[in-house]
Amino acid sequence: MQLPPSARTVLTSGRLAHLVTVNEDGSPQVTCIWVGLDGDTIVSAHLSAAQRKLANVRRDPRVALSVETDVVNDWGLQEYLVVKGRAELVPGGAPELLQRLAHVYLGPDVTFPRMPDPPPGQVMRIAVTHVGGVGPWTEGR
Amino acid sequence: MQLPPSARTVLTSGRLAHLVTVNEDGSPQVTCIWVGLDGDTIVSAHLSAAQRKLANVRRDPRVALSVETDVVNDWGLQEYLVVKGRAELVPGGAPELLQRLAHVYLGPDVTFPRMPDPPPGQVMRIAVTHVGGVGPWTEGR
Repeated sequence: MQLPPSARTVLTSGRLAHLVTVNEDGSPQVTCIWVGLDGDTIVSAHLSAAQRKLANVRRDPRVALSVETDVVNDWGLQEYLVVKGRAELVPGGAPELLQRLAHVYLGPDVTFPRMPDPPPGQVMRIAVTHVGGVGPWTEGR
Repeated sequence: MQLPPSARTVLTSGRLAHLVTVNEDGSPQVTCIWVGLDGDTIVSAHLSAAQRKLANVRRDPRVALSVETDVVNDWGLQEYLVVKGRAELVPGGAPELLQRLAHVYLGPDVTFPRMPDPPPGQVMRIAVTHVGGVGPWTEGR
């Protein structure tokens, strides 16, 4: 789906994304990651293949992701974005994407990852199927 | 389990908790809530019974919960707490707990909920079984 402009703003704001997957035993798993956008697709970078969240999305691609904002609404409640989508893992490209995201999350002059020969890793691509939470994006704005 | 002191600090800091449950179709669900502590039990208040997250925990009490902190570690990464636990719903007490939590989340002089006769609602009590994420609590501190 096409992301509302306000959701794009949140997803490129440098705030942590809480990525939610489901474990093999059916219990929920959550971990915080850096995210960016490639068109309307959410992207994240993973150097190590041995991560629970990656095994989870290989088994079941349905994920959810929540990101806080600094906006407080008229009720005094902090707005936050929730997206649901389907994740796909693509080999390679993790160091380059981490470097791009590090400029957003850590600063314009940062070198990341800080290792001489990082492995190619994997990029997770999340096709968004639903936008929710509390904020203007639920009205398509 | 007994919560490490650093985890208690995060859980009473007034930061949103990203509560993760699993939907009936096995897909993950995430929503942001206010939380507090009752001893070592995480508590949250819910005025309306018609919430997806409440139906989910009635069916499967396994939940996870993540909370950001303002601490940036030596790698430049923002620390965050993840807890796993089992949720139980207890009838009543929601307005009183919301008022207590509003003092943490909104301010010392706030009246919440802002309605004349709030329903008794339900309190969710989460018994913590595991503490993780990125921070000193993973070492028991």
